[in-house]
Amino acid sequence: MDPYMIHTNGDGNLSPVLDVHVNINGKSSGLGKMKGRKARWSVKPSDMSDKTFNPIRAIVDSMKVKPNPNKAMISLSIGDPTVFGNLPTDPEVTQAMKDALDSGKYNGYAPSIGYLSSLEEVASYFHCPEAPLEAKDVILTSGCSQAIELCLAVLANPGQNILIPRPGFSLYKTLAESMGIEVKLYNLLPEKSWEIDLKQLESLIDEKTACVIVNNPSNPCGSVFSKSHLQKILAVAARQCVPILADEIYGDMIRDGLVKLSQRILGPCTIVQGALKSILRRTPQEFYHNTLSFLKSNADLCYGALAAIPGLQPVRPSGAMYLMVGIEMEHFPEFENDVEFTERLVAEQSVHCLPATCFEYPNFFRVVITVPEVMMLEACSRIQEFCEQHYHCTEGSQEECDK
Amino acid sequence: MDPYMIHTNGDGNLSPVLDVHVNINGKSSGLGKMKGRKARWSVKPSDMSDKTFNPIRAIVDSMKVKPNPNKAMISLSIGDPTVFGNLPTDPEVTQAMKDALDSGKYNGYAPSIGYLSSLEEVASYFHCPEAPLEAKDVILTSGCSQAIELCLAVLANPGQNILIPRPGFSLYKTLAESMGIEVKLYNLLPEKSWEIDLKQLESLIDEKTACVIVNNPSNPCGSVFSKSHLQKILAVAARQCVPILADEIYGDMIRDGLVKLSQRILGPCTIVQGALKSILRRTPQEFYHNTLSFLKSNADLCYGALAAIPGLQPVRPSGAMYLMVGIEMEHFPEFENDVEFTERLVAEQSVHCLPATCFEYPNFFRVVITVPEVMMLEACSRIQEFCEQHYHCTEGSQEECDK
Repeated sequence: MDPYMIHTNGDGNLSPVLDVHVNINGKSSGLGKMKGRKARWSVKPSDMSDKTFNPIRAIVDSMKVKPNPNKAMISLSIGDPTVFGNLPTDPEVTQAMKDALDSGKYNGYAPSIGYLSSLEEVASYFHCPEAPLEAKDVILTSGCSQAIELCLAVLANPGQNILIPRPGFSLYKTLAESMGIEVKLYNLLPEKSWEIDLKQLESLIDEKTACVIVNNPSNPCGSVFSKSHLQKILAVAARQCVPILADEIYGDMIRDGLVKLSQRILGPCTIVQGALKSILRRTPQEFYHNTLSFLKSNADLCYGALAAIPGLQPVRPSGAMYLMVGIEMEHFPEFENDVEFTERLVAEQSVHCLPATCFEYPNFFRVVITVPEVMMLEACSRIQEFCEQHYHCTEGSQEECDK
Repeated sequence: MDPYMIHTNGDGNLSPVLDVHVNINGKSSGLGKMKGRKARWSVKPSDMSDKTFNPIRAIVDSMKVKPNPNKAMISLSIGDPTVFGNLPTDPEVTQAMKDALDSGKYNGYAPSIGYLSSLEEVASYFHCPEAPLEAKDVILTSGCSQAIELCLAVLANPGQNILIPRPGFSLYKTLAESMGIEVKLYNLLPEKSWEIDLKQLESLIDEKTACVIVNNPSNPCGSVFSKSHLQKILAVAARQCVPILADEIYGDMIRDGLVKLSQRILGPCTIVQGALKSILRRTPQEFYHNTLSFLKSNADLCYGALAAIPGLQPVRPSGAMYLMVGIEMEHFPEFENDVEFTERLVAEQSVHCLPATCFEYPNFFRVVITVPEVMMLEACSRIQEFCEQHYHCTEGSQEECDK
């Protein structure tokens, strides 16, 4: 046999797919068993795997209700602006990707942290005089989720803890707990446009606190902190000597560790890196402007419509693609919690929102505001019908109900 | 301020770059310090980061020698077939990527394990009657390095051990040690075309052994195991009840764990997934045939040339893109080891090969055989000149030297 042949069922060495084969037919050698060897098969998933829990998947996947067959489904659940085709990628971005492909220069191995030229482009794009940024301050990753993983992995050892916002993006907790890092929740205050409860935040910090994650603008709240609030957060961090893990702030104190960890995989998608320069330089400002105008207009529309519905308390968003809506559960006694509320909303009105239990914040739900305007309005009108049908006056508040 | 504005220095929430900001100007509150709080700044990289060591980077980066300015540099060090443009990607692949871009369907969130349609394509491509494969057996990752990481993470807990080949691909060790998993090296035998020393392999297995990694075809050896040798490896695994982690073999016993772990990041590159169907179905057989013919021819050429050089002992490869060459160090007393040998080869002949110390196999070096033929021949001729200049007869082997 000539091994330099074409294996249509082989070549796995070059493929991104790697399977684990467990021979379950093997028999243990009962006689003459050697000391320290295994007597029988016992292959279990690791503790890390057992500890990996993604609440969005868990809650959404266990939601078995069928939508109302008489109403077309409207999903406001996943923060993906590409689903309905109303927010297409700018043609310059697509062209930049094609140019990177045609150049033939971006299909090999790049450095684990990314090509130097790509690092320079990112540094120059995000540089500002008050926060100077160089190529050596940038590490490219396979998406933001790997970036968060790297940052947690470089800052915290198992047994330490991190502080994360409640309500907050669930991946922080998923990653930290799978790594044996404890998670403590600090509160965001809906009555203060989701600002941080700084006193409670500070009370959670102890000698094992590795970092505070500040997510701004917020998923799921769509809130944006003021400069003065950000300065107060920094003051807490400075007083407590705890680093902040944020998306936008530069820093290089622990960079050697990050570079090392980035070498655990062989680097992010090279095609995208090749396209980065054009994407950052040639995407027209109108693209950003139009996208943000659309989001602002849809946010206002959605907030206005939901604020008028009895039993709901939306919190006006000012950034990101999300809006959080409080449910006055005492007015909806049929439903035990936000999970049941959103399930029934699917069953009766074919509108899918994420229950905020996914974000550690019961009795709220999250609305994604990237859908086309007409669909946004239709969804709000169905949510209104749903609430009107299930709203009950509480005792002693008859007056309110008569309004 | 309207937060729905264009932040040219913001938008980090949507960017793949995540920076860590450490405020080093914060002052500790010396007075009235609360129990359990940190007295001063002390932010260190995690143990995981400290334990992350990539030997190829470490050895290659510390190689400070300059190439001979009178000879154009020839790099035979990194296994990247795209560097010289002589093995271009098939146009069908590039077109498939462009079609995926133009469709606009692959720039959103995909499931963590990959799109179902992509999983089905991969399953059908690698399926064979003796080893049936379904979509649910496939998980797509960000490159093979993430696949290896996932497999190690699902199989082994910190404190357990894994068995890896010597010589072998360094990433297994880099990943395992960063995760607190011990690495034991089993030997490949050059005199047996790099087959596994099965007896020694079996002697290393104990009750803490989580898996045996079998890399076939081998990096760096370029060897391919026979069917009967593979069956002997399986027999050891069956007898010892230890799973094998291989690139090509299907299995689903621990899939739930892998799916969970895949959710730690939000999934692999969607554009590539969109292109996968066309890549797998439309890439012409000639592309594979021509690539493999070229590799075989270059391997034969290189082996023949190096086998004729006094002091070198190449091992004929039969797969992958690599060839291992033994150095009879007793004939090169000027050089302390393979690292120094390859450094001087750069300094004098501008030919760069990786010292096999990178692969836990001293006194060998690895040659990458993907370079154009004329460059391959030139490199061999320079290696010959280098060896002839530095070859010394050992005492008592004068006869051999006279040959």
